[in-house]
Amino acid sequence: MSGALRGNLMVGQSGGPTAVINATLVGVLHAAAAHAAIDNVYGMRHGVEGLLKEDLLDLEVENSTTLDRIRRTPAAALGSCRRKLRPDDYARILDVFRAHNVRYFLYIGGNDSMDTGNRIADLAGREGYDLRVIGVPKTIDNDLMYTDHCPGYGSAARYCALSVRDMGRDVEAMAGYDRVAIYESMGRHAGWLTAASCLGKETEVDPPHLVYVPEISFNEERFLEDVSRCFVKYGFVTVAVAEMLRTAEGEIVGLSEATVNSDSFGHVIVAGCANYLARQVRERLGIKARVNLPGTLQRSSMVNASSVDRDEAYMVGQAAVREAVNGTSGVMITLERTSNDPYACATGATPLAAVANTENFMPRSYMNREGNLPTDAFREYAEPLIGGPLPPVGRFSFTPVAKKALPAE
Amino acid sequence: MSGALRGNLMVGQSGGPTAVINATLVGVLHAAAAHAAIDNVYGMRHGVEGLLKEDLLDLEVENSTTLDRIRRTPAAALGSCRRKLRPDDYARILDVFRAHNVRYFLYIGGNDSMDTGNRIADLAGREGYDLRVIGVPKTIDNDLMYTDHCPGYGSAARYCALSVRDMGRDVEAMAGYDRVAIYESMGRHAGWLTAASCLGKETEVDPPHLVYVPEISFNEERFLEDVSRCFVKYGFVTVAVAEMLRTAEGEIVGLSEATVNSDSFGHVIVAGCANYLARQVRERLGIKARVNLPGTLQRSSMVNASSVDRDEAYMVGQAAVREAVNGTSGVMITLERTSNDPYACATGATPLAAVANTENFMPRSYMNREGNLPTDAFREYAEPLIGGPLPPVGRFSFTPVAKKALPAE
Repeated sequence: MSGALRGNLMVGQSGGPTAVINATLVGVLHAAAAHAAIDNVYGMRHGVEGLLKEDLLDLEVENSTTLDRIRRTPAAALGSCRRKLRPDDYARILDVFRAHNVRYFLYIGGNDSMDTGNRIADLAGREGYDLRVIGVPKTIDNDLMYTDHCPGYGSAARYCALSVRDMGRDVEAMAGYDRVAIYESMGRHAGWLTAASCLGKETEVDPPHLVYVPEISFNEERFLEDVSRCFVKYGFVTVAVAEMLRTAEGEIVGLSEATVNSDSFGHVIVAGCANYLARQVRERLGIKARVNLPGTLQRSSMVNASSVDRDEAYMVGQAAVREAVNGTSGVMITLERTSNDPYACATGATPLAAVANTENFMPRSYMNREGNLPTDAFREYAEPLIGGPLPPVGRFSFTPVAKKALPAE
Repeated sequence: MSGALRGNLMVGQSGGPTAVINATLVGVLHAAAAHAAIDNVYGMRHGVEGLLKEDLLDLEVENSTTLDRIRRTPAAALGSCRRKLRPDDYARILDVFRAHNVRYFLYIGGNDSMDTGNRIADLAGREGYDLRVIGVPKTIDNDLMYTDHCPGYGSAARYCALSVRDMGRDVEAMAGYDRVAIYESMGRHAGWLTAASCLGKETEVDPPHLVYVPEISFNEERFLEDVSRCFVKYGFVTVAVAEMLRTAEGEIVGLSEATVNSDSFGHVIVAGCANYLARQVRERLGIKARVNLPGTLQRSSMVNASSVDRDEAYMVGQAAVREAVNGTSGVMITLERTSNDPYACATGATPLAAVANTENFMPRSYMNREGNLPTDAFREYAEPLIGGPLPPVGRFSFTPVAKKALPAE
């Protein structure tokens, strides 16, 4: 029976950290400890980077207090990487696996990592090396295909919803002084995270008033009209924008003043459209505008994490071990929503080859016709993922006192 | 007896919002409801701005659920302002007070607001109008004189400590990819808030590695040396900087690319030195650097608020009413630390004239000799204010597995 494969398990973390990727790791460690087929559990220091250098960690020496703490620690406790493997790296990886009798390879990451896992699985198959490869999803961008959502998204979404609500209260209090507040969210291609800014919105006056996502072509004139209209209506404006937006012609908005880099996968990385947009508001509308750029705080805030996300992240880690021990290989664990009310989710699996290097964009129906606010359909999708309602806030009824003083001169 | 003055109470909020300024407001409302001398309680819509327009709110119609929620709502529930009063505004204010029989005027704000309160008290005295004026401190900058600390500071300090710790975990996980992470804190003149970034630091490797405050002249060459040294030592660098720094010659660091505005008090407002510094690190050291600019989130995050700060903010609101009813006028409520271990604090009072338009800077002994990290003396001062230790985080022991594979070619 294929389930009887005996050997060691190797686990690694890859790509941008999240608040809950360590919960997934601890899910893996707890499950691995419970399976007789798994002898030792090794951690890869900084993902495949450490694998290539044979920089491996003995994770069985860690006590339960450490694991409990790491489960609640943001970022990636093993260290992460963005290493793009070269063709000859794969043979080296297999050598390391052979030397350490690694039979279970679990890689926690996004679509690049699923590609890495897929290539390793292919090579092991071609070489006749019995290896079970499982990809474990993680990304705040929520852009992996064939899963209802990605661990890491719910927590970053909660951070976004709460931060934009807080920012809105702040600018509302300062109406007349600060006037337009722009929040720049991570998400260069998919707008899932930026759209989550609406999850703290209860009434029309609540933030955000305007939301712009990468999937919808950005029109600067229409943006300025939107801001003007909201300013007249509310006296202040709260905007959430993705870090990268493009015009209908494909041009990156505010490229001139953005920070441009490229990662080792060759992806162009642009951040900074919010500063450009704030400047347009100041210069072209003459309205004071300020920007909040929480940057990596979005993906590393544990105090803002979603309890649902934390639990699911742990669950996919456990499911990965279970699937591997049961003989599955070459798949990514998925989350399958079985019910929306009450919300319930189970794990499933999908071939790594299917998810590798693909991106899951928001359906157009998740944004309104104007392309400047998420719809109720989006809210219905995303709301259960942020782990319960945001802490309640209040507003006065603003009951006026009748004027009695003589009018001011 | 002077305590028997009967009339209405007017309360307002001024200056930049905080997480707990509404806790102070609710402290005022609860205390005012308990005093027979106070008939009605009116709120000023957007501070003295609303007072001048006679835009006043009836706060007694609000029920206890609303008040409980507002106590936990960030920003300023009445609306705030940065209005600089003109000489003839004061007569108008007194007219409004007379028309509404306002005998208690409580103004929650920073040093500009204390100046406003002081001038109103002076005028009432000169005009023989019996008025009790109490200033209630609030500022995340912690720069008011004659008080141990300011309500609002502890919460923003906790936000700063936790955010910099989170940011540090993130960049540590990505060491080799992201390398230098810079956090820009509010605080243009006083470094109290920026210094609080050290409160989550337990070991040398923990963030922040470097902290720069406005009180200490900034030297760009030394900064770049500091960053280089830390980079060699740790493989990644975490830096906390105040939004405005000056060189020994008095020049504002990175002024060319900062956002420059001025407020209605004539203060020049500069923000943005972190982006400039990150660019220096990239261009002059060739090290990748990124910036987190949480902006107004620093002062409006309730989920990061300090329980000590929330309680004290409520307490100063109550103390303000008590002092006023007891016949005191022309003072600001202060916090007096009566014990550090266990931490205990009582309220006191200081003349408005003394605190108006003054600024309390960090003592030099709160920063190390090199001027790039807070000292234990600062930690001892600030630690009790953030409301208990940060949530625990873990780190693996990084126990290596013995190498067995043949060396890579």
